[in-house]
Amino acid sequence: MNTFFTLTHNDKNSRARTGVVHTEHGDIQTPVFMPVGTQATVKSLDQTDLQNLDAEIILGNTYHLHLRPGEDLIAEFGGLHKFMHWDRPILTDSGGFQVFSLGTQKEKSGDIAENDTQGKLVAIDEDGVTFRSHIDGSTHRFTPESAIATQHKIGADIIMAFDECTSDTADKKYTMEAMERTHRWATRSMEAHQKFKPTDYKRFLFGIIQGANHKHLRETSAKFIAAQNFDGIAIGGESIGYNMAATADIIDWVTPFLPAEKPRYTMGLGYSPADLFVAVERGIDMFDCVAPTRIARNGTLYVHKKIDPNLKISITNAQFRNDSQPIDPECLCFTCLNHSRAYVHHLFRANEMLAYRLATLHNLHFFLNLMRDMRQAINVDNFLDFKKEWLG
Amino acid sequence: MNTFFTLTHNDKNSRARTGVVHTEHGDIQTPVFMPVGTQATVKSLDQTDLQNLDAEIILGNTYHLHLRPGEDLIAEFGGLHKFMHWDRPILTDSGGFQVFSLGTQKEKSGDIAENDTQGKLVAIDEDGVTFRSHIDGSTHRFTPESAIATQHKIGADIIMAFDECTSDTADKKYTMEAMERTHRWATRSMEAHQKFKPTDYKRFLFGIIQGANHKHLRETSAKFIAAQNFDGIAIGGESIGYNMAATADIIDWVTPFLPAEKPRYTMGLGYSPADLFVAVERGIDMFDCVAPTRIARNGTLYVHKKIDPNLKISITNAQFRNDSQPIDPECLCFTCLNHSRAYVHHLFRANEMLAYRLATLHNLHFFLNLMRDMRQAINVDNFLDFKKEWLG
Repeated sequence: MNTFFTLTHNDKNSRARTGVVHTEHGDIQTPVFMPVGTQATVKSLDQTDLQNLDAEIILGNTYHLHLRPGEDLIAEFGGLHKFMHWDRPILTDSGGFQVFSLGTQKEKSGDIAENDTQGKLVAIDEDGVTFRSHIDGSTHRFTPESAIATQHKIGADIIMAFDECTSDTADKKYTMEAMERTHRWATRSMEAHQKFKPTDYKRFLFGIIQGANHKHLRETSAKFIAAQNFDGIAIGGESIGYNMAATADIIDWVTPFLPAEKPRYTMGLGYSPADLFVAVERGIDMFDCVAPTRIARNGTLYVHKKIDPNLKISITNAQFRNDSQPIDPECLCFTCLNHSRAYVHHLFRANEMLAYRLATLHNLHFFLNLMRDMRQAINVDNFLDFKKEWLG
Repeated sequence: MNTFFTLTHNDKNSRARTGVVHTEHGDIQTPVFMPVGTQATVKSLDQTDLQNLDAEIILGNTYHLHLRPGEDLIAEFGGLHKFMHWDRPILTDSGGFQVFSLGTQKEKSGDIAENDTQGKLVAIDEDGVTFRSHIDGSTHRFTPESAIATQHKIGADIIMAFDECTSDTADKKYTMEAMERTHRWATRSMEAHQKFKPTDYKRFLFGIIQGANHKHLRETSAKFIAAQNFDGIAIGGESIGYNMAATADIIDWVTPFLPAEKPRYTMGLGYSPADLFVAVERGIDMFDCVAPTRIARNGTLYVHKKIDPNLKISITNAQFRNDSQPIDPECLCFTCLNHSRAYVHHLFRANEMLAYRLATLHNLHFFLNLMRDMRQAINVDNFLDFKKEWLG
């Protein structure tokens, strides 16, 4: 019996499903959207804000935390939960994606890039990856063993195997080689993970399916990862969450090979409510994406379709200057309950920090509330109607 | 009988006093420190934060609000309280200080200068001041009548007469002419104020004593302002709060001429706890200063003297990298109750927005709590002992 994941209900009219992920820091209702807390903070929010949003799990980024403040310091404080004062579950990625995307970037002042741009890796070999810090250019190295050790020190409840996220522009030969290396790294990640015997609380390890946009490679990767003893299965790749047509195909290719009793996680998916519908309908359980928080800081705010068919507005637009309505009149977030579009517009125009917090609270509430409503719909076999109501 | 201000207690061993300022948005216990909310927000905080800090009144800046979003827009929303969703008292300055200090500055990205630099005014004449916006260089004009009208539209509970804040480097002749003009503007401000018959709630008008660092001018100005029908009396000038030796002298010069039954307000004083002691001891009731919030955003945090004799630490210093203590172990603010110095240090080093909020919460709590403790000490005639305990 799997004590990590309980499948609660399968929607009768789609592959959507509800479940519960169990960790020693608490349960997580799935499908779940996980806010991204790259550097031990979800940008602009404190941990009470996250509790008020009822976020059941947040993400940390191993690459960033390794560089600053470092896993040893975090371990000295008893792990990331205690360091950042968050006692609910945490998931860390393996650092692989950021190594490939940020390894050659310069730090931007005030707002670190949160993995949006694919850059060049510094040096990859069979054993691991050598990369430069985006902060100070110093040289670092991750191997499957060190990435797992780092994640154990950081102390997330759910950790990820070290993988190579290949660019969609790589040729099929390279993509296949990288996928095979990712499989060898998956095995090494598992072996490294099993050597740790934490005395505080259990860490759960997810494997990652790669193979870019090649059906055969994705199927091969799905079979391989599904055959290992991972607690959950992630689907990685440059397309996931960025190219939704490709993402839908990839999910459709791999899910037939995935055991129903393990949670499924598309990494980096969640740019828009529509994207979440695509993946939930196909049986995905876990999501993370920097988009809701990043676009919030740019003044892009989610709304229901009756307000805007694109499900978002740009609050800095002149039309909102004297608009006394809340961002979304149906929304019950802190921002919408307390403030007008005009006030949020003013704060953005005046470059006030409160703007970023109010916008972030709104977008995260919007996503987390959508997931709650999706779960409810799935549990009464109503997911497709709910989707239609939402997207038209 | 003055229904605006109730004098509660005079300390037997100093000129310190406690009282209550009554407004239609609530009472204010004095001596009081008023957090500065320049652009309709206390930087990095929301209004629930301010309620949790038990801030009884906040400040708005007429100059900034006039430029953005404009007093007409604010009035359209029923005033600043409703626009920013803050139902406790608000005080606005007259805009004069910012016109003189910001009139020629360029806007800094992300964090508008909050009146720290004395610049050149654009053009001053008997009728008023013409100045350029620091945002877009557009030309604006304030007269005593327009400054009062603007403040009535913004809708603060306490508004200020329009004055000229002369530089301490001005010669005595100019300083006297400016003071006399300020007196004529005070009379015009009062006349303009009395023409407004608000139907929503009462606005109270304060006059401002000028005269720079000249004893005779300060005495003259104190007598003039005290003789008018103002609800409260402010002491303005470049030195106030910046040159504390001069500030102490100026307070000593003017207070003998001030009626006991009117609240006294030193504008811009409150850089450090020590400064507040200097002024409270001399019978000042009201304070505002951008320092606690501005230096917070720079990582400078107030602490008790047993931690640092200068009553502050720079949290970005390397020594705090792995310090598991709260900023000040005696402090009961949100930040100190929840977070370590190491975590706040990390957030600053990582340029995370949460750093600014946690630091601002700490510094404001520190000041507001100090004022609560001062009031308690005054009420039992223990102010001087309390001061000694604090400053040594």
